[in-house]
Amino acid sequence: MSSQNKKNVARPIGVFDSGLGGLTVVKELRRKLPNEKIIYFGDIARLPYGIKSKKQIIECSKENTQFLKSKNVKALVVACNSSASVSIPTLKKIFKLPIIDVIQPAVEAAVRTTQAGRIAVLGTQATIDSGAYQKAIKKKDEKIKVFSIACPLFVPLVEEGWANNDIAKKTIETYLSSLKSKKIDVLILGCTHYPLLKTSIQKFMGDKVVLIDSAGPTVKTLAEKVLLNQKSIGSNKALEICVTDFPRNFVKIGERFLGHKMEKVQVIQLSKGLLRGKESMVLSSE
Amino acid sequence: MSSQNKKNVARPIGVFDSGLGGLTVVKELRRKLPNEKIIYFGDIARLPYGIKSKKQIIECSKENTQFLKSKNVKALVVACNSSASVSIPTLKKIFKLPIIDVIQPAVEAAVRTTQAGRIAVLGTQATIDSGAYQKAIKKKDEKIKVFSIACPLFVPLVEEGWANNDIAKKTIETYLSSLKSKKIDVLILGCTHYPLLKTSIQKFMGDKVVLIDSAGPTVKTLAEKVLLNQKSIGSNKALEICVTDFPRNFVKIGERFLGHKMEKVQVIQLSKGLLRGKESMVLSSE
Repeated sequence: MSSQNKKNVARPIGVFDSGLGGLTVVKELRRKLPNEKIIYFGDIARLPYGIKSKKQIIECSKENTQFLKSKNVKALVVACNSSASVSIPTLKKIFKLPIIDVIQPAVEAAVRTTQAGRIAVLGTQATIDSGAYQKAIKKKDEKIKVFSIACPLFVPLVEEGWANNDIAKKTIETYLSSLKSKKIDVLILGCTHYPLLKTSIQKFMGDKVVLIDSAGPTVKTLAEKVLLNQKSIGSNKALEICVTDFPRNFVKIGERFLGHKMEKVQVIQLSKGLLRGKESMVLSSE
Repeated sequence: MSSQNKKNVARPIGVFDSGLGGLTVVKELRRKLPNEKIIYFGDIARLPYGIKSKKQIIECSKENTQFLKSKNVKALVVACNSSASVSIPTLKKIFKLPIIDVIQPAVEAAVRTTQAGRIAVLGTQATIDSGAYQKAIKKKDEKIKVFSIACPLFVPLVEEGWANNDIAKKTIETYLSSLKSKKIDVLILGCTHYPLLKTSIQKFMGDKVVLIDSAGPTVKTLAEKVLLNQKSIGSNKALEICVTDFPRNFVKIGERFLGHKMEKVQVIQLSKGLLRGKESMVLSSE
């Protein structure tokens, strides 16, 4: 490997999401690719993307990518389903770097897994309305029957820490009861918040339905498409978290997704200078 | 009245909220003050404010007020509790016009109503964390005991149209069960979304607890503080709705709050030219 290439592989991988849900992908990334430096960008000031218009989501996604580009990332993971479902063609046209989204890898895993040829997709309103999963599945195998359900209450439930209480169970039942008769054998969790509801959803759907979340397949795709760093890096330098706002429950919710303590968080001034990556302050998590 | 004054009273009243909840205040405004022209600004692209930091909320509120100011409003109603709880001093310092928030009027009504001297306040995380209601009540009568509860799930429940189902009932029970033993006789609905949960909350709390929402008291305060228009206006010119984004369920949710059809909605480009009030397109509701 030339020294130029060596320098390139040491560059970080950029991950963005509208909030902290994408940290479920970061968790898997760190587990599977421990030599990679990761810069996470959570656009908390403008979340949730799931209820925004397509135009607005594309605008935000362009700004987020621009910010990560300014941090010299070697690849981009769009860890927000709402963004991945509408903004990928625009981002690929504008930015010259490998872009991996959370939809395509999950779809490939789902199509490989289904034997019944009947797949369900759960997501936010924006993701489901975009038809992105449906289109991607049909492109792989047009005979597969797809059932899509928007579940707007799932994100606030997870953020409230109510993933396993009676209200979560009742909400899951309300959204998913129509699926029971559809004879699906694969269900895609099409939002990075949903893995935290996995146990409750699995219980409701029964053991015969395979639940697929994006984290595993996305990291696998990333490892195939991007030159990886072979040299071990100090773990304290491995993850940089940047956010556009720092709300009260930030640390509690973030650590729930990430699965461990957050060490340092940078708050990025969104209104004045996001594109220049101006950092307004550096905070340590409590 | 001088011709200058006549011209002034004909100017519109500006109302802003982070989303569409403030339309519950507009509904009351139109009912009580039918001669007033109203410009409503819903900052949908950046909702919800309830989970943002204080700094971020003040920044958004300044921009929203600037926009309404550019529309020549004679008074401003901050119909967003999360904003009202943190941004009023800043807005009053910067903008020279009468500013009425939804907190002070509701507090005055609550203090007048309570006989037990025990008041509960429900709100978003940001509103409750700010302590704005607690401080305003204590300022009126420091002997009153205040019980504050953040109810983050209430807004998404209302937006989903689940104000009266089992999940709403169970959520209300989870948040409010600790109140049952507190012997309160007044409960303030400290969020413009919450009036739609009024029936379910009243049922849970029982008839002896008086529920107070901001709409009535706010419009009453407005009528006392602002010179009103005496001349009748055509109803089709009475309400202008501006929003920073136009998501899929916008019309359905908006009309739920407003109580009637929306005729015309203007979408304001937030990222490029909010302060100049540049309008990107004009949409009619379906």
